[in-house]
Amino acid sequence: MTRFATSRRHPLVAYARSLRERRVRERERAFLVEGPRTIADAIAAGFWPKLLYFSPHRASAEEQQIIEKARKYGVPVLAVSDEILEYVAETVTPQAVIAVFPFPSLEIRMPEHETWLLLIVDGLQDPGNLGTLLRSALGAGAHAAFLTPGTVDPFNAKVVRAAAGSHFRLPIQPLTRDNQAWITRVEQLVVGDPRAKLAYDELDWTRASALIIGSEAHGVSPELRHLATHHVAIPLRGGLESLNAAVAGSVLLFEAARQRRIAAHQATNRE
Amino acid sequence: MTRFATSRRHPLVAYARSLRERRVRERERAFLVEGPRTIADAIAAGFWPKLLYFSPHRASAEEQQIIEKARKYGVPVLAVSDEILEYVAETVTPQAVIAVFPFPSLEIRMPEHETWLLLIVDGLQDPGNLGTLLRSALGAGAHAAFLTPGTVDPFNAKVVRAAAGSHFRLPIQPLTRDNQAWITRVEQLVVGDPRAKLAYDELDWTRASALIIGSEAHGVSPELRHLATHHVAIPLRGGLESLNAAVAGSVLLFEAARQRRIAAHQATNRE
Repeated sequence: MTRFATSRRHPLVAYARSLRERRVRERERAFLVEGPRTIADAIAAGFWPKLLYFSPHRASAEEQQIIEKARKYGVPVLAVSDEILEYVAETVTPQAVIAVFPFPSLEIRMPEHETWLLLIVDGLQDPGNLGTLLRSALGAGAHAAFLTPGTVDPFNAKVVRAAAGSHFRLPIQPLTRDNQAWITRVEQLVVGDPRAKLAYDELDWTRASALIIGSEAHGVSPELRHLATHHVAIPLRGGLESLNAAVAGSVLLFEAARQRRIAAHQATNRE
Repeated sequence: MTRFATSRRHPLVAYARSLRERRVRERERAFLVEGPRTIADAIAAGFWPKLLYFSPHRASAEEQQIIEKARKYGVPVLAVSDEILEYVAETVTPQAVIAVFPFPSLEIRMPEHETWLLLIVDGLQDPGNLGTLLRSALGAGAHAAFLTPGTVDPFNAKVVRAAAGSHFRLPIQPLTRDNQAWITRVEQLVVGDPRAKLAYDELDWTRASALIIGSEAHGVSPELRHLATHHVAIPLRGGLESLNAAVAGSVLLFEAARQRRIAAHQATNRE
């Protein structure tokens, strides 16, 4: 039988709500995922929630399906009142289902015949921007994203929502000393910089590359800027000084993807 | 002497607050612009505010400069309490200055030696997405943006904020019957569609083009889809089905800009 919770003091409700805090997420190595699409994506990628919360009378057919699937797999499912769902959810208009997932530990690996494409996010503050950028990185074929300590927490619910399931397919790691070794594996470390002389499409992105995207207000930190081998600009019209950080990163990542697609196509034709 | 307002009933305070409503904005043909950067951008583009509100003890040097400049030009400037500034502002953390600007009426024009690049936004709902997309359109050299009636109001404060001054440099118009004539001036009407067979970079974007970007949830409406001459996809990796709508639009717009830049460069070299 499905349990039904209407109290904020219910231990599983209190647990979910506590995951709004970064400190708790890092201790529990777990985070909230809101909405059926991302939950279904995660399950499709091979990850099962630790817990599932839903509003019985509001659940859509899609949401009912997820609940049944999870229940069969043995995931504890908790029916809650709308008030409790809103209490747990971080986004303003929660859908009828919320899940707690363990942090996905994805191995960083590169398929044969590819070259590294890494994303380094340095101090991005806006959760929507980070989520959008991670989604683009996955779609452009990046192999991993590394986040400097000043960057917004990738397991913040707004980041998770904007990332649309990327957390379960793209390895996302903090940029620690241990991880800096990854950076040295690439041939070029590229910084997007509106004042650079080199246009972004003049760079050879088929080489093993790491792209560094800085914060909305302050750009890339001096430490990483110092390590950069190339600075590239997206030529802008209309007197505009810069693009949205997630858009700029996406334009660069998809230029890398475009060049790599053309190169792969040419290689196939030669064979 | 600067007037100082602490009451919500002050007529100019009530006026600014009323501009949160689309109906009022359209009647008054005026909108709110929050933050010194966008206000300074608007002034640089040749537009003066009708009214300026600021918090005297919180204004930064940059904000003081704007206030002085506007005052010299004869703009009515109203000092207000922080509480009133928050009452007027639509964004959660308002900066120390807010302005009321008349709707900019920008003429749609195309410089010699260029071909049309128009953006059609069809039902986009998220204000951050629309603002970001307008900013990208300006930066990519689009000549105008047309918005279908189901699209979020471009003069909503969140759109204005994300657009970073684009409203004062890019003509933004509703897509009415009168304006549909603009669409017929282009050679190709392009829809971004994740399931299309043609990759976006295989299209010749140097031809006169209009790009249609649909809503986050439902894509492009059947009416516009029917008019489209080309459907293009951004090839995606990692099992991703789609990109953020503003990102997808930006990737397409900057591919158009890239092809046009290369063509212009080749034309110059031939001369």
